[in-house]
Amino acid sequence: MQFDLPLQTLYAASLLGGAAFALSGFLTGVRKGLDLMGIFILSFLTANGGGVIRDILVGRPVALVHEAEPFLITSGVVLLALTLKLHKLPQLEQRLGFVVSDAVGLAAFGLSGALVGLEVQAQFFGVLALSLLTAAGGGILRDLLVNEVPELLHGGFYGSVALLQGAAIFGLHAAQSLNTATLLAAFCAALALRLIAYRGKWRLPKPAKPAE
Amino acid sequence: MQFDLPLQTLYAASLLGGAAFALSGFLTGVRKGLDLMGIFILSFLTANGGGVIRDILVGRPVALVHEAEPFLITSGVVLLALTLKLHKLPQLEQRLGFVVSDAVGLAAFGLSGALVGLEVQAQFFGVLALSLLTAAGGGILRDLLVNEVPELLHGGFYGSVALLQGAAIFGLHAAQSLNTATLLAAFCAALALRLIAYRGKWRLPKPAKPAE
Amino acid sequence: MQFDLPLQTLYAASLLGGAAFALSGFLTGVRKGLDLMGIFILSFLTANGGGVIRDILVGRPVALVHEAEPFLITSGVVLLALTLKLHKLPQLEQRLGFVVSDAVGLAAFGLSGALVGLEVQAQFFGVLALSLLTAAGGGILRDLLVNEVPELLHGGFYGSVALLQGAAIFGLHAAQSLNTATLLAAFCAALALRLIAYRGKWRLPKPAKPAE
Repeated sequence: MQFDLPLQTLYAASLLGGAAFALSGFLTGVRKGLDLMGIFILSFLTANGGGVIRDILVGRPVALVHEAEPFLITSGVVLLALTLKLHKLPQLEQRLGFVVSDAVGLAAFGLSGALVGLEVQAQFFGVLALSLLTAAGGGILRDLLVNEVPELLHGGFYGSVALLQGAAIFGLHAAQSLNTATLLAAFCAALALRLIAYRGKWRLPKPAKPAE
Repeated sequence: MQFDLPLQTLYAASLLGGAAFALSGFLTGVRKGLDLMGIFILSFLTANGGGVIRDILVGRPVALVHEAEPFLITSGVVLLALTLKLHKLPQLEQRLGFVVSDAVGLAAFGLSGALVGLEVQAQFFGVLALSLLTAAGGGILRDLLVNEVPELLHGGFYGSVALLQGAAIFGLHAAQSLNTATLLAAFCAALALRLIAYRGKWRLPKPAKPAE
Repeated sequence: MQFDLPLQTLYAASLLGGAAFALSGFLTGVRKGLDLMGIFILSFLTANGGGVIRDILVGRPVALVHEAEPFLITSGVVLLALTLKLHKLPQLEQRLGFVVSDAVGLAAFGLSGALVGLEVQAQFFGVLALSLLTAAGGGILRDLLVNEVPELLHGGFYGSVALLQGAAIFGLHAAQSLNTATLLAAFCAALALRLIAYRGKWRLPKPAKPAE
């Protein structure tokens, strides 16, 4: 089975999502007092770290080494953000445009991770893990580099979307129903779920900490 | 030379050890205020991160992508721990059952790392590094994710056990004496050494910090 | 094209640089209160982490697994530093000998990363990234392990040297002018640039943090 067509269809989504991730890295970098190179690196890692982790885990050459595009997109985002002084805007990360773009990235990257998992014939949990790490790996690296506990681990209904999407894609594939239409449906469902969860401030429960 | 037989013999040990590592990740996650997904991820990484690092370093496909078992074990541990509210038990990590299971994991994982090193014909220090990282890599990732300096780097006679075991297995192999019996002996010696070190609170010396 | 000759010519530089990186890891480890094994691990990772990241990114076997030399050099540096109590020397990292050795490492490692990038036919930005990560990846891992924001991201004109050197080597290769002489020139230029930048306390600009 070839995934070329849906992947091309979803290509624009991954570009928009990558730009949102890059912007999130930019804003974190400015907030943490990094210099221009540090900000660029953080921005780039946030946008592309998930894909690098995915490629390393499945043992194929890291796509990034051979593709100029991600570097150009990150550079564009950073230059634009600096020019427009986006870091001066209060609460940019809560604005609708950012939230939607970020959710588009989550859905597009998670989908790409799940498809790579199917390509290497990963088992069910492997597909879920690849979906999660491709979507959220960049954010994990961003938080690790600036010494914060990754938001993914405590912050809301975000990674869960990637896990559910991975499960759906695995199921569709097992039922031999994976095609352009169902892939796009999985993408839209993940996007909608993330936006609903964001709106409703969904959170996963946390067990009570023990008394020390 | 085939290591299949001893590896099967030591299989139960790695399961028990993996469960202990997963429990340690669970407890750390609860303590750090992570949500359920964060706790599961931390638990999973603690149990399996060492093996992932090992596979990446020797350039072979990451076993985890294709094996459902580790995910099922971690899920079982997390569900059981939540049901039994194990995080409410004071000082669980100092109880005999936990300490022994963790030491079993150290010995079993270290041994697996050393054997993979021999398979890829690593040199002496490479075998030691693989033994250490397979045994302790999961704990390092756990500590990094929650922003603590890895306990391995300052905490006691733990990684040293993996290094000594790696050296022993390299020596046995060089002396063409590696077989089921000697492998099991190396496993038992590492286990005993760790328990003695724990009991005796062995510590490696620390150079005095310079006056700032 | 074969790079064997220049690589051999630059071999001594990478040894000296590796020793400087190892010493930097040693000093950080002592300052952070690590024990002897932790100090050795930190020292080793600082010296060799960049090369490991490089090898993983281009998907080739990690050289370290098969080479005893890096382990011997780190061991030598750590033993020597302990014997001479180098950590008692005030501001060792600002002394001329250390600064020059570290700059030699930056130039030699960055060059090695760029050459590996050319070998795997990476595109322009891929060569730059490999140059940067090979030169500075060890320092990044060092800082992450002891919970500090990597100095590379905010600390001065350091990574920029590797990026410029990578660009120069890519350009030389594109112009079919890469040979022993030009490689050595690129090495010397990077070394000189780093020393001038250090002397002049060059810094990249930092955008003003937003008012919270």
